[in-house]
This record gives sequence, structure tokens and C-alpha cells, in this order.
Amino acid sequence: MTEQLVLHEYSSSGNCYKVRLTAALLGIRLERREYDIMKGETRTPEFLAKVNANGRIPVLQIGDRFIPESNAACYYIADGSSLIPTERFGHADMLRWLFWEQYNHEPNIATLRFWMKWVGPDNLTDGQRLQMSGKRQAGNAALKLMNEHLAGREWLVGTAPSLADICLFAYTHVAGDADFNLGQYPRVVEWVERIKGQPRYIAIDA
Amino acid sequence: MTEQLVLHEYSSSGNCYKVRLTAALLGIRLERREYDIMKGETRTPEFLAKVNANGRIPVLQIGDRFIPESNAACYYIADGSSLIPTERFGHADMLRWLFWEQYNHEPNIATLRFWMKWVGPDNLTDGQRLQMSGKRQAGNAALKLMNEHLAGREWLVGTAPSLADICLFAYTHVAGDADFNLGQYPRVVEWVERIKGQPRYIAIDA
Repeated sequence: MTEQLVLHEYSSSGNCYKVRLTAALLGIRLERREYDIMKGETRTPEFLAKVNANGRIPVLQIGDRFIPESNAACYYIADGSSLIPTERFGHADMLRWLFWEQYNHEPNIATLRFWMKWVGPDNLTDGQRLQMSGKRQAGNAALKLMNEHLAGREWLVGTAPSLADICLFAYTHVAGDADFNLGQYPRVVEWVERIKGQPRYIAIDA
Repeated sequence: MTEQLVLHEYSSSGNCYKVRLTAALLGIRLERREYDIMKGETRTPEFLAKVNANGRIPVLQIGDRFIPESNAACYYIADGSSLIPTERFGHADMLRWLFWEQYNHEPNIATLRFWMKWVGPDNLTDGQRLQMSGKRQAGNAALKLMNEHLAGREWLVGTAPSLADICLFAYTHVAGDADFNLGQYPRVVEWVERIKGQPRYIAIDA
């Protein structure tokens, strides 16, 4: 990779950690630029005009070009590596987990984590409060689906670690922050440990 | 493509239409199998065990293997075609729009369309009702972002139609079903017409 890579991030976000973990596992250096999302630093006119019109992090900067969306940023970094299956079905199957993560996992597990640990239960709106039990149920359904899928498997796709494992790991391994009980999903716990055992693994607070 | 492709679908879903449109534009034949999601036909034990443990459509069947998640199914079909940019940045940029669609566009525009046209305003839960104004605002923000991005561009990524255009088109062109006013987003309207003008284009009710 010849161009300098810069990660625009809020470091405790699992979506940002995914990108750092992908780079770390592949031995790729990322420059890091921190924004405080609680102070609206990703909604400034400058950020919206230059970095991401959607006002969100992470954004991966490659030279003077930008890739928003965590899973797309991870793909850019991992493109051509062993983390991206090359066979047609395996490749689409990996993407399936990445889309599933953004639709069925992140909006439940990551959002509850954010509401409970960052916003705080007392500061939620009525609309958020009314969504909590639905998100808890959907988050548990996502963890159950992963647990069942991992029966007889070490990795989500095929027989080797792929981007699907990294992107799902990010919020799964900290689901306890949102009071999900991972102990109910023993194959998920084993898979979490398997990822932590990978060479060059880094923790979310590293 | 040597193996028979079967689309497990609910045909008025924009997520299912995406897959049909991708195949149509590329001249690829899909066998279609319809499920009535209003009658729970994708939550039967047989469907969950065989087709998709997540209980959702669309699912693309390739021989005896299955790819859930609409955008992954579209990618499988389009893999190797002109709809998938091959240059590294353009490819990741296309994926960025696909992830953005599932996180920022579909949960707002498609969900409001479903609630208003299929479930019916009188049958919504309190939690759903409380989410409506937030989803309306986020849906309009998504359309505004597309409209601004399309300034001076014909297509979302690079200078040719890609899967990003097809996947975003699916729910954008029927946003009026959820009372979004596309007339406020003139570049989006022109882009919708540009896609409708593509050779082999098919309508959602075709």
C-alpha cells in the first residue's frame, strides 16, 4: 500500500475498532485521528464537507480520498489479502455476514451499548426507551444465530478467518457492555477466544 | 453461470426487486419462488432450517447453497460484470453505498413504506408510531445526501452504472409509497430516470 492511510475515528466505537483490527492483523499501519462524537465533532461543517457528508465515523482516508462505512473501510484494507475469500460463493457469503452485521447485529447490540454506557439510561428519549426490549430481543436473536451457525465450524465463512469474523467480533466481544450474557452462547465465546488468539491481535482499547 | 439460480422472495419487497433487476440488466435468468411474509411463510421451521436461519427474504439459491442479504445476492450475480468496479478504491466506494443503503436508507424509507402500505397506520405499535418522525427525518436526510452527491455526476460511483445505483434505486424510486416527496430531490429524480432508461430494465411489478 503506497498511499498513507488515515482513520478518522472515535476509538471506543466498535465500528472504528474493526478497521484498526483489520489493519493490525495484516500488519498495515494506520494513522489515527480522534473525534469526540459526544461533542458533535463529526457534524461540523468542515467534517461534513471534507470527510463524510453523513456525519459519521469511521472514515478511512486514502491519500485525499475517503471511504465511509466501517465494513467498506475494512474491505479496502483487506483487499487482496487472505481475509477476503476469492472463490465466488465464499466471497458473497462473507459479504452476507457483513450486511447482516450492519442490519441485524449492530443496530441492536451496538446501539444498546451506546445507550447504556455512553448516553446513560436516564437520558434516553421515550422513543429510545420503547425500543429497548425489541433491541434486546433482536440482539439475542443475532447472538443465537451466530452460536448455531458456529456448530461444527471454527469461522463464520469457510475454514479460515475472514473479514466476516473481524467485523462481527467488534461488537460481539463487548456485548456484555450492553448486558448481553455471552455465556448463553458458548460457541460464540470459543470463537471470540479464537480471534483473540490470532497473531498481531489488538484489543479495542489498545 | 452454470448452476441454476433460484430467488426466494416476496416480490413487492424492494430488497427482492434489487436482485431481479441486477439479473435482468445482466441478462441472467432467475427462477422465482414467492413467500407471503404477511402470513409468516419465511418463519416456518422448514424455511429457517433450509433457506435462511434469519427468517428473511430475499435469499439467492445457487444449486444447493444459499446467500441471504439482498446486497450480497446482487454481488454474487454481478460478480465479474461491469456493475462491479475492479479498481480498489472504486470497489470499496461501491461497497460503501451498499452498506450505507442497509444502515441509513432501507431502515427508514423501506420500513416506513412497509408500515404505511402493508401494515397500515392504524395497526402500528406505540413503539413504531414513536419512531415514525425519526425515520421520516432520517429518510429525508438520506435522499438529500444522494441528491447532493449526484451534483455533477450521473452515477453514484465513478462514471458508469454500478451495483450501488441498482441497490439504492430499489427503495428510492418507490419512496413516494411512504409519502416522501422525491420532487424535492431533482438530481435523484433524474438519476431514477437514467436507471429506468438502461437496456433490459424491468419494473418492480414486472
